[in-house]
Amino acid sequence: MFLTVFFLLVALCTQGGNGKEGEEAQRPGHVSVVIVGGTGDLAKKYLWQGFFQLYINQVSSGNTFSFYGGGQSPTEKATPVLFEILKAVSCSKDVSQERCALLKDQFLRLAQYRQLKSLEDYQDLAKHIEQQLQEEGMTEAGRLFYLSVPAFAYADIAEKINSSCRPKSGAWLRVVLEKPFGHDYGSAQVLASQLRSSLTEEEMYRIDHYLGKQVVSKMLPFRIQNKKLLDPIWNKHHIERVEIVLKETLDVKGRIAFYDQYGVIRDVLQNHLTEVMTLLTMRLPKNVSRSEEVLGNKLQILSSMLPLGKNQAVIGQYQTYKAEVQQELNKTKDHVSHTPTFAAVLAQIDDAQYEGMPILLISGKMLDERVGYARVLFKNDIFCVQNHNNVHCKPKQIVFYFGHGSLQYPAILVSKNLFKPALVDSEWKEVTEHKDVNVFGLPISDFYIQIPMEQKEAYAELISHIFLGQKNSFISTENLLASWDLWTPLLSSLASTFPRIYPGGADNADVLDIHLKGKDVSYNNEVVIISTDHLGGTSTNGFQVMQGKFRSSEMVSAWAEQLVDKLAADIQEAAEAAIYEGGVFHLALSGGSTPLALFHRLADHHFTFPWRNTHVWMVDERCVLPTELESNFRNLHDHLLQHVRIPYYNIHPMPVHLNQRLCVEEDGGALMYEKQLVKLVNSSSFHFVLLGVGYDGHTASLFPGGKADELGDSLVALTESPSKPHQRMSLTFNVINRARKVALLVMGKGKHELITQLSRVKDNPDKWPVTGVKPTNGNLVWYIDYDALLG
Amino acid sequence: MFLTVFFLLVALCTQGGNGKEGEEAQRPGHVSVVIVGGTGDLAKKYLWQGFFQLYINQVSSGNTFSFYGGGQSPTEKATPVLFEILKAVSCSKDVSQERCALLKDQFLRLAQYRQLKSLEDYQDLAKHIEQQLQEEGMTEAGRLFYLSVPAFAYADIAEKINSSCRPKSGAWLRVVLEKPFGHDYGSAQVLASQLRSSLTEEEMYRIDHYLGKQVVSKMLPFRIQNKKLLDPIWNKHHIERVEIVLKETLDVKGRIAFYDQYGVIRDVLQNHLTEVMTLLTMRLPKNVSRSEEVLGNKLQILSSMLPLGKNQAVIGQYQTYKAEVQQELNKTKDHVSHTPTFAAVLAQIDDAQYEGMPILLISGKMLDERVGYARVLFKNDIFCVQNHNNVHCKPKQIVFYFGHGSLQYPAILVSKNLFKPALVDSEWKEVTEHKDVNVFGLPISDFYIQIPMEQKEAYAELISHIFLGQKNSFISTENLLASWDLWTPLLSSLASTFPRIYPGGADNADVLDIHLKGKDVSYNNEVVIISTDHLGGTSTNGFQVMQGKFRSSEMVSAWAEQLVDKLAADIQEAAEAAIYEGGVFHLALSGGSTPLALFHRLADHHFTFPWRNTHVWMVDERCVLPTELESNFRNLHDHLLQHVRIPYYNIHPMPVHLNQRLCVEEDGGALMYEKQLVKLVNSSSFHFVLLGVGYDGHTASLFPGGKADELGDSLVALTESPSKPHQRMSLTFNVINRARKVALLVMGKGKHELITQLSRVKDNPDKWPVTGVKPTNGNLVWYIDYDALLG
Repeated sequence: MFLTVFFLLVALCTQGGNGKEGEEAQRPGHVSVVIVGGTGDLAKKYLWQGFFQLYINQVSSGNTFSFYGGGQSPTEKATPVLFEILKAVSCSKDVSQERCALLKDQFLRLAQYRQLKSLEDYQDLAKHIEQQLQEEGMTEAGRLFYLSVPAFAYADIAEKINSSCRPKSGAWLRVVLEKPFGHDYGSAQVLASQLRSSLTEEEMYRIDHYLGKQVVSKMLPFRIQNKKLLDPIWNKHHIERVEIVLKETLDVKGRIAFYDQYGVIRDVLQNHLTEVMTLLTMRLPKNVSRSEEVLGNKLQILSSMLPLGKNQAVIGQYQTYKAEVQQELNKTKDHVSHTPTFAAVLAQIDDAQYEGMPILLISGKMLDERVGYARVLFKNDIFCVQNHNNVHCKPKQIVFYFGHGSLQYPAILVSKNLFKPALVDSEWKEVTEHKDVNVFGLPISDFYIQIPMEQKEAYAELISHIFLGQKNSFISTENLLASWDLWTPLLSSLASTFPRIYPGGADNADVLDIHLKGKDVSYNNEVVIISTDHLGGTSTNGFQVMQGKFRSSEMVSAWAEQLVDKLAADIQEAAEAAIYEGGVFHLALSGGSTPLALFHRLADHHFTFPWRNTHVWMVDERCVLPTELESNFRNLHDHLLQHVRIPYYNIHPMPVHLNQRLCVEEDGGALMYEKQLVKLVNSSSFHFVLLGVGYDGHTASLFPGGKADELGDSLVALTESPSKPHQRMSLTFNVINRARKVALLVMGKGKHELITQLSRVKDNPDKWPVTGVKPTNGNLVWYIDYDALLG
Repeated sequence: MFLTVFFLLVALCTQGGNGKEGEEAQRPGHVSVVIVGGTGDLAKKYLWQGFFQLYINQVSSGNTFSFYGGGQSPTEKATPVLFEILKAVSCSKDVSQERCALLKDQFLRLAQYRQLKSLEDYQDLAKHIEQQLQEEGMTEAGRLFYLSVPAFAYADIAEKINSSCRPKSGAWLRVVLEKPFGHDYGSAQVLASQLRSSLTEEEMYRIDHYLGKQVVSKMLPFRIQNKKLLDPIWNKHHIERVEIVLKETLDVKGRIAFYDQYGVIRDVLQNHLTEVMTLLTMRLPKNVSRSEEVLGNKLQILSSMLPLGKNQAVIGQYQTYKAEVQQELNKTKDHVSHTPTFAAVLAQIDDAQYEGMPILLISGKMLDERVGYARVLFKNDIFCVQNHNNVHCKPKQIVFYFGHGSLQYPAILVSKNLFKPALVDSEWKEVTEHKDVNVFGLPISDFYIQIPMEQKEAYAELISHIFLGQKNSFISTENLLASWDLWTPLLSSLASTFPRIYPGGADNADVLDIHLKGKDVSYNNEVVIISTDHLGGTSTNGFQVMQGKFRSSEMVSAWAEQLVDKLAADIQEAAEAAIYEGGVFHLALSGGSTPLALFHRLADHHFTFPWRNTHVWMVDERCVLPTELESNFRNLHDHLLQHVRIPYYNIHPMPVHLNQRLCVEEDGGALMYEKQLVKLVNSSSFHFVLLGVGYDGHTASLFPGGKADELGDSLVALTESPSKPHQRMSLTFNVINRARKVALLVMGKGKHELITQLSRVKDNPDKWPVTGVKPTNGNLVWYIDYDALLG
């Protein structure tokens, strides 16, 4: 029997009426809530309480409910367990004791346990629902399945729901999923496609409970409310850095079987902290309730993140973790786990607004305190001529304080010397009296503080959003995959890294402190003195390089990173010498992937490179549009030119695209480039030419059998490549060999075989084009990394 | 009679033998030192002591000396005064009392007073010197004239020296000058050219006594000694800001007649603080003793400074200054002086290494303490996970402490968490024990500290450099003029600004505190809450603009600055709307000087402008090379494109230069541009076209009598301008009038007459081309500033 309580829809419409999906969802009627895993930990701790809350709020909304706790156990065994849990639910303070008792009584009568194991069980459940609907003559509003079970069971349950538990058309189906959603990009994709075969995107609600936390859910509204004041300062020029931190004091004892598979990055950074980061940095939606826009803007941020690699992270593991693993996983004493229980990651967004602004994502177990916050620290833009202790000389910041820590409550804090923020919500209030605590070294009285009038559980909030069909606080498949796309390369690159061991708690002292070095991050050395090598100096003395001979020319060899550093330093030296001598530096650069590391080195570390007086030429180009990914110029543009301040007229892409067509002889592109370089480059002698070598021995776009000698005196020519795109434009040996300096960069194990061959063959440019590189008056240097040299 | 003391030249060569000029100068012989103004304050306080020091150091060098104190007074009156001064000179501690007495006795015997007033006086002096040389049979080494007299007398004295006191060839002439060297660019240039008619650049030694201060003189050596550690961090990415500060507690009572003409900027910032700034930021010379290189590198920094204007400075005046002026200058009670006694200036260097790095130059009288320092504060690159009070969580800095203040001695300080610096000089030592003082809020034990073993007077140091002919610590004419070139526009723009009045001393509290806002600086408001307008927000509500109609189109009017802000905001709004709709924004921009302010606004304040999706087109171009100053593209490039991150392929300069010639019809540049825009711009309809209007009513490069209708259907055409360069390329009305939005920007009083006329005339594009702007489906808005509108 259902309790049928019909009231006007008013309350409901006011709460959820501003979202597209929200409105659509609100056909009143009967709602069946099924918690699969209904007697599990999460259900016990948060879910039933959340659904009771929902029931209280919706009881007078025109909807009716039934609640099912599902599980593997047989009904007779699990029913008392479920009711023990249900009896523990409670009302919020604003509900009178009597009313609470009544509501609780109703709630208990609406709930039942069902075994949900086999397909039949699901079919039975569906039959039961339909039968009851019929008996009571109710219209069905929808069915909500909350899967509080291990992720491996998702696909199977979703399939069962799909095949047997779909409501009739007109009513909605919503299936709620809890992380983990895979452990990397691949597995997330597999899971997503399995789910998609049973459920539509619309029907899936992936929970990140952080999005239900009161402060987190108000981050966007706060930014919108204070848009006018934030707009001018919410960028790289004003923000010194962003810190998103979740520190815990507990260990993971008892949960090792799960945890050791995941570690802190998958457990916290990939989801919670990433979500907080997008909320802080995403473009503000015109309508915060429009999920499509909110999720789209989040996706945009995820897609503009700089890739995360080994150099963007440090990881740690608390000391006793090893023993816990050995014990819980039945391992021997020599078993070592690489799973990090602490991680600090430096993320950066590659767009004009945030470029270069450090975003630190940090989380760990067994730290000194339990606290979670997102802190936006602004650059100090005040100079105090006298009296440095004045309030306005202090750091300016906005802190979204999720809870715990010194404050012990969720709050949004804004430095008083920044601005007085508007109240984020009518259910929030400003606090003016507070105990005498410090936040980030400042007395709390230095801040404007707002807090929610009533503290609410994240799950209750999210359950209400699910019921209202508001998808903006859930994770779409697209965004989930974008997040894994960001984190997976980092996870792979860390797979074989040993975490730093930390003692735990206060004993950690400064063991985990972090040093930001441009785009990289590392543990701050115990020894505080920085050494040259620590700083990545460009002086030659700092390099661990080997000098030698290769094919009777000079050779420089080192590990890839040092080799690139040395080459970059050599180019800068050549640039400075050329400019000192003649005011200008002509540099010709090759395409392909090998020089990318060099481009990054030049862009990120050579701040004094004289770009203003440098002309950049192309060694060769593929006959494609310059905006295409295959274009050498595009490569050079995206990885180097966009990141340095070089005059437009100093950039010389090869004119492969003329008269709306590509590399047609009659259009004279090669001749045009030749004329340009004859005019600008003294004696057509480049100061520096960077070349690579292909597996077939080609260099520039001069390929084996290309009959380079048939190109006559031309300096630039159209050539044919054996691989696609076939058409190329290339400098010829005529001009390459006139250069003052030619660098031949060869890197990677894949080139070892080639290097071995090249060390033996005689000059034969027709067969081995690279052997045609013989500068007449200049200097050839081979830059070969140890991988290519030693295999 | 000369005391002839011949010794080996060893000591001298060791000291000065590494400079080009130094070496050349060291022919031993007799040196005549003439202090013109030899009984004046400076001479009494520093100069004679300095020359005595020189004498002590050189007495065994192979040179002989005679010293002349010159002045206006008759000999019999001034001789006793001079000897009173001379008797006060003292030896340094390392000279024994007996030896000191001997040396002093010798020194006194070598000195004499001479009246130096008329040309005859100088001729007599010359005769006297030559006579003595002859009598003693001495070779002459050189003559050193120290002009310690008001600057107005320089030219006259220099002329007298030139005409009568030059030594015979082989011996040197050095004339030392004390600031002020003019009070602005013009007067400095006049003085320089007067001096140049009497003296060569080589012969002039312009003193800035700051360059003789021990710490200042070691700034370059410190940077060189620690180059390896500093190189990677000495740039905008690592330095948060640079502060160059000279605070004084005294007032200028008694010196008003001089001071009120100059003020703190001319007195301290233009010279001392500017020199310190160049020492901190200049490219390191390969050889620190090579004056040419040192001065050249300083000049390079001076030439790359961003211009200083009203927005880069705040000025103040201590409260009692007004009364002091009234009294000392015999002014009435209503007399007001604008002379600043306090100034804070935000300087920036416009190059890749330092771009955007704030350099604060600050000095004032009647402040809370006497102290001088240059402080390089580094960005915080450490994140402390626990225990924020750890030493390595503290700010990192390098401080060149000139003296006084809490330390009370000159020193170089480096934060211990930065690095341990090499000792700058063998005459310096590291201090490890010190009293318990704070420097910039940190205990002094947080720093490595080095100090000179012996404190030396700046003048004594500089006098020794003059004697050794080391010009690297003096101001060359070229550098002096470059400095005035930097400071003069600021001084002019401040001429009518009222300084903020400050009470003086501790009472100043936070009255003089400074707020840095991007490239601008202002006093920090007493009210710490920032308002929108304070932040330069881009929201429309913040603008004080008038909306109206002009020539039956929409008109926006405001003061120039607000107008430009509004136009920039409107362009960004149009960009966002276009990109939201179709993913791309096509913007066509005009040349000329009017849009410059707009370009700066866009580059410096619109951090979220979607440049990645914006294509920039030209409205018109002059037929000159794109690198020439007259080129519209060059203008756009230097003021906008170089400062934003816009892809190379989104930039569309007009192809005025084809086949090595300019705007030849047959080369088809106009058609080429037309094809490009037809291909890329949907319906050839730009989203936004920015136009200006010339005095003759022309717009784009469509001139009166240009018969625009004869251009047929073409979208781009070659046109003729009545003024040079005559040849132009221009968009035609055909494409302008297809635009979605056209903005006509008109600014300045000079355009008032034109606006008046335009408000009356009918559409007549042949006579008034601008009246041909009539977008068919788009929207025309006139942006007219109050100057142009109201005259």
